[in-house]
Amino acid sequence: MRKIVHGSDQPLHIAVVARPEPGPHEVLIRVAAAGVNRPDLIQRAGLYPPPPGAPETLGLEVAGTIEAVGANVASWREGDHVAALLPGGGYASYAIAHEGSVLPVPKGLSMTEAAALPETVFTVWTNVFEAAALKPGQTLVVHGGASGIGTIAIQMAKAFGARVFATAGDAEKVALCEKLGAERGINYRTEDFEEIVREAGGADVVLDMVGGPYVQKNINIMNEHGRIVMIAFLKGPTSELNLMRLMLKRITLTGSTLRARSHEEKARIATNVANCVWPWIEAGKVKPVIDSTFPLEQAEQAHQRLESGAHAGKVVLVVE
Amino acid sequence: MRKIVHGSDQPLHIAVVARPEPGPHEVLIRVAAAGVNRPDLIQRAGLYPPPPGAPETLGLEVAGTIEAVGANVASWREGDHVAALLPGGGYASYAIAHEGSVLPVPKGLSMTEAAALPETVFTVWTNVFEAAALKPGQTLVVHGGASGIGTIAIQMAKAFGARVFATAGDAEKVALCEKLGAERGINYRTEDFEEIVREAGGADVVLDMVGGPYVQKNINIMNEHGRIVMIAFLKGPTSELNLMRLMLKRITLTGSTLRARSHEEKARIATNVANCVWPWIEAGKVKPVIDSTFPLEQAEQAHQRLESGAHAGKVVLVVE
Repeated sequence: MRKIVHGSDQPLHIAVVARPEPGPHEVLIRVAAAGVNRPDLIQRAGLYPPPPGAPETLGLEVAGTIEAVGANVASWREGDHVAALLPGGGYASYAIAHEGSVLPVPKGLSMTEAAALPETVFTVWTNVFEAAALKPGQTLVVHGGASGIGTIAIQMAKAFGARVFATAGDAEKVALCEKLGAERGINYRTEDFEEIVREAGGADVVLDMVGGPYVQKNINIMNEHGRIVMIAFLKGPTSELNLMRLMLKRITLTGSTLRARSHEEKARIATNVANCVWPWIEAGKVKPVIDSTFPLEQAEQAHQRLESGAHAGKVVLVVE
Repeated sequence: MRKIVHGSDQPLHIAVVARPEPGPHEVLIRVAAAGVNRPDLIQRAGLYPPPPGAPETLGLEVAGTIEAVGANVASWREGDHVAALLPGGGYASYAIAHEGSVLPVPKGLSMTEAAALPETVFTVWTNVFEAAALKPGQTLVVHGGASGIGTIAIQMAKAFGARVFATAGDAEKVALCEKLGAERGINYRTEDFEEIVREAGGADVVLDMVGGPYVQKNINIMNEHGRIVMIAFLKGPTSELNLMRLMLKRITLTGSTLRARSHEEKARIATNVANCVWPWIEAGKVKPVIDSTFPLEQAEQAHQRLESGAHAGKVVLVVE
């Protein structure tokens, strides 16, 4: 099979290798499309090594057709069209997924669209809905509102009945955030999100992937009992913080990553996503925003697209 | 009645004023003893104004005898010996408490000991047991282990079956922490708590009243899913923080204050404290540590004692 090989000093390129075999609780997926995510760029730069046991090959999500199932797999069979969260290995014509990290392709979605879902939906679900326990009627602030995760977060929160404010870096992205359901898109280059959100009544939950100077501003905009969830640090993990408001307003600051979690935990999230988010997708309330697609052999260009920051929504590799 | 009057430019002194009247849901307590707390010092310095509706007079907790009850009070009657959490007004011969913030004096305790309980026990309960959800077998790190709150936190966590590590500023205080149940007292002047706690297996919960440089060290010592609760900032609320570990380990950083909470919430905490903590006290597993007592008219000296940092356990005013 074909897969993408990465090394810090060379462009991403194709290699031909043996097809992997599924273990007892795994499925082998013939990959139709693979999502490109920022952690892939960080892993490639040598700063985010795969967890123990995970493939070296890049790629945290795919959609495709099940080619073979392990001896103990009961829920899936050959020929099923699925989307899967992977510990790695998605940039390839075949990929191995744990049975609990697999979901059916939602009705009405293409393989490309389905491949854009697992990372973003699982991440938003576990951070915004579980850890931060967003409630209908509460206000969510999404930073990076036009990113893959941001575009899904806005739609999921909106479908759930929350108010959404989203920050983005240009007028077009701001308009996209509002089209997706944000009450107000905020151009962080020309506007002050702290002022706008405070005037609008404050935030109950913030989903932040920016870090740096945003963390204090997030603390400043929170309502009582507000929850801030960090999922990345595009502006760095270091901030000078004044925690007085955190104590006085009983704010919670937390964060998480998805990749290092156990199979059991991913399976639990998958079940909740299947029950709660897939119906929103099949009802057309939540739809992956595809920025661009690249054939597998142009993975290098796909990374450049994401690196540029010009993208809105997801970048996807089309594999077959 | 007598009460203590404070002003930023004069020593605390006695004034004679009219006795307050209890409202429909309030009780009037003839004060036997009043706990002295750090927020009293901060309020006196003009930095912690009482919440709306609270008395200007200092004092967040008392023990004494109920002198009169409001029209709608069913749970208490004249002559009951009680300890109470107050919104203020404890430095006086009579004080008003909301009916839900009152608990019986635990069997076997003196009024002085009972007056040392409400602030510390409510604070530890709501932060360590509720917000941080400490579990038996988990590891709690208590900063300021020899403080009023620290001495109670060590004992409550120990009674609950948790492992406790506590920091303090001299050998005598360290020994007190260990006597109260800490597996290891840590002299923060001569030892590095970060190194000691990490070698001992890390922390699941940290109760911090220090802030400043401790916050990053707290983040560094946490186990996965660890919870840090801030209840004060003796070294200031500002820290330069690297939040990467917070995200990777899914740590929660939160905090709270007690005084601004609603009557309903204080009543809820009081019920839990009566059910869970009072039995530990009556069984001798948790006992207030009294550093020193001062007659009401020597409130100034009591404040100086707390300000000095030399105290271990609680400073209490004996009123009658």
